[in-house]
Amino acid sequence: MSEFFTLKLVGDKLHILDQTKLPLVEEYIITDDPERIAVAIERLEVRGAPAIGVAAGYGLAIGFKNFTGDVEERFHALFNRLASTRPTAVNLFYALDEMKKSFDENTSSSDLYQILIKKAVDIHNEDIELCENMAANGLEIFDSPKNVLTHCNTGQLATGGGGTAFYVIKNAFDNGLVKFVHADETRPLLQGSRLTAFELDKAGIPFAINPDGAAGYLMREGKVDLVITGADRIASNGDSANKIGTYQLAIMCQYHSIPFYIAAPETTIDRNISSGKEIKIEFRSGDEVRQISGTQVTRDNYDVLSPAFDITPSELISGIITDKKVYRKPYNF
Amino acid sequence: MSEFFTLKLVGDKLHILDQTKLPLVEEYIITDDPERIAVAIERLEVRGAPAIGVAAGYGLAIGFKNFTGDVEERFHALFNRLASTRPTAVNLFYALDEMKKSFDENTSSSDLYQILIKKAVDIHNEDIELCENMAANGLEIFDSPKNVLTHCNTGQLATGGGGTAFYVIKNAFDNGLVKFVHADETRPLLQGSRLTAFELDKAGIPFAINPDGAAGYLMREGKVDLVITGADRIASNGDSANKIGTYQLAIMCQYHSIPFYIAAPETTIDRNISSGKEIKIEFRSGDEVRQISGTQVTRDNYDVLSPAFDITPSELISGIITDKKVYRKPYNF
Repeated sequence: MSEFFTLKLVGDKLHILDQTKLPLVEEYIITDDPERIAVAIERLEVRGAPAIGVAAGYGLAIGFKNFTGDVEERFHALFNRLASTRPTAVNLFYALDEMKKSFDENTSSSDLYQILIKKAVDIHNEDIELCENMAANGLEIFDSPKNVLTHCNTGQLATGGGGTAFYVIKNAFDNGLVKFVHADETRPLLQGSRLTAFELDKAGIPFAINPDGAAGYLMREGKVDLVITGADRIASNGDSANKIGTYQLAIMCQYHSIPFYIAAPETTIDRNISSGKEIKIEFRSGDEVRQISGTQVTRDNYDVLSPAFDITPSELISGIITDKKVYRKPYNF
Repeated sequence: MSEFFTLKLVGDKLHILDQTKLPLVEEYIITDDPERIAVAIERLEVRGAPAIGVAAGYGLAIGFKNFTGDVEERFHALFNRLASTRPTAVNLFYALDEMKKSFDENTSSSDLYQILIKKAVDIHNEDIELCENMAANGLEIFDSPKNVLTHCNTGQLATGGGGTAFYVIKNAFDNGLVKFVHADETRPLLQGSRLTAFELDKAGIPFAINPDGAAGYLMREGKVDLVITGADRIASNGDSANKIGTYQLAIMCQYHSIPFYIAAPETTIDRNISSGKEIKIEFRSGDEVRQISGTQVTRDNYDVLSPAFDITPSELISGIITDKKVYRKPYNF
């Protein structure tokens, strides 16, 4: 079992694990070029909202290594370039704004590069700490060793730290409270069979991948005691947006009387929206369904409906694990 | 919109649409060699339990074209070869047994080839009629034009006739009672995105493919009025085995108050078993999840749990459409 990391600053260079090649090839992009970091975000070589934010922070800082020109101009160019990579990722803008504050306070410092690097490391460390707190808080939902099912990828590969839902599961496993993990394949992008399986294998947790359509069967057979997923956005009433397929897991959990938990940092809670009805669902390209890993499986002229997310209504959520605490129904953020 | 057929005897040769190449390539295997027909069944070039039975009937008959040797020996060799192709397909054995009856009654006839061909055509026609009756009976569940969701492939490609669930939907569409069809992709073998999409396109029915994980979202958005699937085996209490993913659709239908119907011929009802608990679920090879259309997507050493079927309990089934009638809860076959 070899170690891996998603993002790491080594000397003056950022090492990025190329997630598009996982799990078949484990290869790092090693760069001190902010443009290469922007491209890595665009190509999904680094993905997961928190991980993207961390990468963008490093990208901005690295752009000032040995830089001797107009720093204002340079900062704006880098900021705009990185902001354009994944325009819907909230954490990306959070990280860029934090970098901007640090830049604005230190524009004329001769140590600007070191100051920005330190800020990027701080953003990274902040994310690591959020993950640690979520994992620690999550322990309270385990009263005995469980078989857990999860969806999509929410581990180290998706964050700057150990992950959200995945890290809760891993920490519980390390404490003897997880027996087995079922990983939903997670169509269309296969984050489960590719990335979560990779992380489960690395962590030495016994697991199996299942087609998304088999989750109900596994529950009926008594093979699932608990479901935990991440969330992309949580409304003040607890309604949670997450990867497509999460909502139907929650319905199946209710039918089988299985607890359904969400794990996400406090920053995911959007107190400006009262319910999930205010969350707009984007649709992904039909090509992700018509092709799989570059292989054409059906005709280009067939229509596809491929929503990126769905909304799980709060009444189906047993609890929401954040870096602060475990919230219980009824939610009132 | 061009015509297609799954199986057709043209002169002395059987034309088989090669389903492994669909929908990208529409190509027929044209053969008068029973071994080639056996291989077509093994390679899934022809698939779907009723279609396999029809193909095997033709295969047996064609083996007697211009045959002058020991007919008993020939018959047993062909029977055993064809029976070995897909040992779990009930319709295959039904068709072979029907062929055997005809052979036993006409062993010494000089017209043996013509008699067996006629029997194979009879088996084919019987299947066509079953499908016609199911489609006609199915009309009664539509009181107004509906948006329908279906799973896997249950059309012309799976049977000797127009299909089971698919043909009910097509007939309703032809009668102005279907507005739109959502086709579950149906992992792992993609029968929805490849085969059902092909048939919907050919029939001119408006449709879209969706990842299996998006069915719940579509229901919540009010885009699904009705779900109809096929069945592989129905117990006397109505519990129905069908392609993995069917059970969770039925749970989601109950949650959203959407009717859930099964369409299958009477021959699918197994009165020897009292409930779905007596149906053993086979597991498919994990390679179907680790590879997609021959492309490796995840590591060979990752475990996969890929049940072929699941059991939908009768209480979740609004009605069962057969070639005889539409049965309603409580079922007592």
